[in-house]
Amino acid sequence: MNQIDRDPLLLTPGPLTTSLRTKQAMLHDWGSWDAAFNRITGEVCRQLVAIAHGEASHVCVPLQGSGTFSVEAALGTLVPKGGKVLVPNNGAYCARILKILGYLGRQAVELPFAEDCPADPSAIEAALAADPAITHVAQVHCETGTGILNPLAEIAAAVARQGRELIVDAMSSFAALDIDLRSTPITALVAASGKCLEGVPGMGFVIVRRSALEAAAGNCHSLAMDLHDQWQYMQKTTQWRFTPPTHVVVALHEALAQYTEEGGLAARGGRYAANCRALVKGMRSLGLEPFLDPAVQGPIIVTFHAPASPAYDFKTFYAKVRDKGFILYPGKLTQVETFRVGCIGALDTHDVAKVVHAVGATLREMGVSITAAVHG
Amino acid sequence: MNQIDRDPLLLTPGPLTTSLRTKQAMLHDWGSWDAAFNRITGEVCRQLVAIAHGEASHVCVPLQGSGTFSVEAALGTLVPKGGKVLVPNNGAYCARILKILGYLGRQAVELPFAEDCPADPSAIEAALAADPAITHVAQVHCETGTGILNPLAEIAAAVARQGRELIVDAMSSFAALDIDLRSTPITALVAASGKCLEGVPGMGFVIVRRSALEAAAGNCHSLAMDLHDQWQYMQKTTQWRFTPPTHVVVALHEALAQYTEEGGLAARGGRYAANCRALVKGMRSLGLEPFLDPAVQGPIIVTFHAPASPAYDFKTFYAKVRDKGFILYPGKLTQVETFRVGCIGALDTHDVAKVVHAVGATLREMGVSITAAVHG
Repeated sequence: MNQIDRDPLLLTPGPLTTSLRTKQAMLHDWGSWDAAFNRITGEVCRQLVAIAHGEASHVCVPLQGSGTFSVEAALGTLVPKGGKVLVPNNGAYCARILKILGYLGRQAVELPFAEDCPADPSAIEAALAADPAITHVAQVHCETGTGILNPLAEIAAAVARQGRELIVDAMSSFAALDIDLRSTPITALVAASGKCLEGVPGMGFVIVRRSALEAAAGNCHSLAMDLHDQWQYMQKTTQWRFTPPTHVVVALHEALAQYTEEGGLAARGGRYAANCRALVKGMRSLGLEPFLDPAVQGPIIVTFHAPASPAYDFKTFYAKVRDKGFILYPGKLTQVETFRVGCIGALDTHDVAKVVHAVGATLREMGVSITAAVHG
Repeated sequence: MNQIDRDPLLLTPGPLTTSLRTKQAMLHDWGSWDAAFNRITGEVCRQLVAIAHGEASHVCVPLQGSGTFSVEAALGTLVPKGGKVLVPNNGAYCARILKILGYLGRQAVELPFAEDCPADPSAIEAALAADPAITHVAQVHCETGTGILNPLAEIAAAVARQGRELIVDAMSSFAALDIDLRSTPITALVAASGKCLEGVPGMGFVIVRRSALEAAAGNCHSLAMDLHDQWQYMQKTTQWRFTPPTHVVVALHEALAQYTEEGGLAARGGRYAANCRALVKGMRSLGLEPFLDPAVQGPIIVTFHAPASPAYDFKTFYAKVRDKGFILYPGKLTQVETFRVGCIGALDTHDVAKVVHAVGATLREMGVSITAAVHG
């Protein structure tokens, strides 16, 4: 796909490789008070709500900063001070939610799962039934720490049966994996510009049930992160409360146009799934095994066991693959040595084939014995 | 200066008109984990500290989001939960600090001044002497609501004599007006990418005394805004804790190179001062009077009285000037009808002359009688 000046391809969970057309949208300056810019903000928000089929029930509140800022904003705005949050935990981004709740002084209950096991809807339902004081569940959809996919529709149904609210960190799944707000009861869905929408990083957004947002005045611990205040101001003025990242917003607008042209969610998700299949197949042909069972592997990012060879170290491996034009991602597991390869961004199976080739050549250069080296 | 595709010139306090070279830096994608990107972050931080001559005493902590996010982060990180903050208030951005402190649950004392009067160092010193419980003063340097310049060096000296800490919102003055941390006792200086540095908006930063930051663990109300945590992580890894706005960071790096090439603070501040003089002179020749006394007017943004003519309304005026290629800014005063014109960004006195010409032509088109119409 489009590249300029031979930038390395980013095989990461974001920031990722974006199209030249998306980046070229940033060659203009926009006034944050000007109607032309605020029309763009409005169009972006409408399109984001439509991707999740939330037009009848939900609104989109954009927020400056990284995706984590929007996760914290959703928790701080929607969970009242006396609320209590259940956090199914099977990875680093679930743990981050627990950390945020600690900062916010909101009561949290951790429901731990192994990092290679999806969150279990019946265990979640049992935990809710056992503790009526729990008001919210905060669930990561695709846990980027490993790449595991949690069964969101089943979890949402369980949470709804128990009459609680559900806040979903859909950072790395939104716009690639189907989330239908008409049939899936979700209070708030959090994602960001620089993931599967293939924009550049710098803003997040929360797609939130209008009635929940309306009831959230006065909850938030932070002026900057108060989604209720941001939404009220935008409703009144069409403007962001504080200086928006104008170039990031117009890049996302351009990325959304390409998303539609590509064929929307089905095409985007299909391309990533094909990338993921080609990646796993190619890496396996080199003797590199994925950490997760294929049944729970999401098509966003794949964790691979590091070769067990003494000739392997990640730093050298990373540098040599980078020299060939590809940026990989370190593992995030504490018990097992791994590395990660992203399947998302403006890249296709031809690019994935080149990545696999570069990885194979690097392992040979390093003298990592392929057949003997792999885990298991 | 550089323009592309006849974008309108932004006569605003930011986002502002940036050079094409700065925007072209965003035509590349960067991995947030990659050493090449993290070297850029490190260089940007070093240069920002050097602009304020803080190398021996201060460190720079960058933060995702708008400038207000960094103001909130500085207050939340540096003011302990039992702290008490004096806020000299002569405008909208001072009032915003009071609002943030309310969200944070930190005790605040307002010291009000008229919007056309600079904050008075002796009144600040008296307020501190009268209330030993006050731990911090939060001072806006150039109050963008009107454009008034507060006497920062004198205020800093007064705060230091009283043994309190000083947090400065230098959003619209940093890099254009001299602030020398070697001679001016300031705990933290807050600014952002998209103001006088002429980068694009999307990140702020806090230049903070290292000893104060080291003592600030555990203060912050927010994970995302915890400058102590952000700094510790960056020290350890060279990386941002959460996804950085990579394109905004590399644009700021490129903008800083141009800042140095232009001649640094003296040249940048000199250009803005010349823009301001040309603007005031030109607008006066049209019969439009500045709101502030010239003695207290900063060279960043000028508030003008609206023409008193019944033929004038801001919306029409704005739209007609915009059609001519210039984006003005609304006034922010509640008692007096005004509009604002920024002097900052990649523009010079030739651009200012064109703005004045467009304003004059617009007033004639609107049938605003120039000689009779002005205030006073």
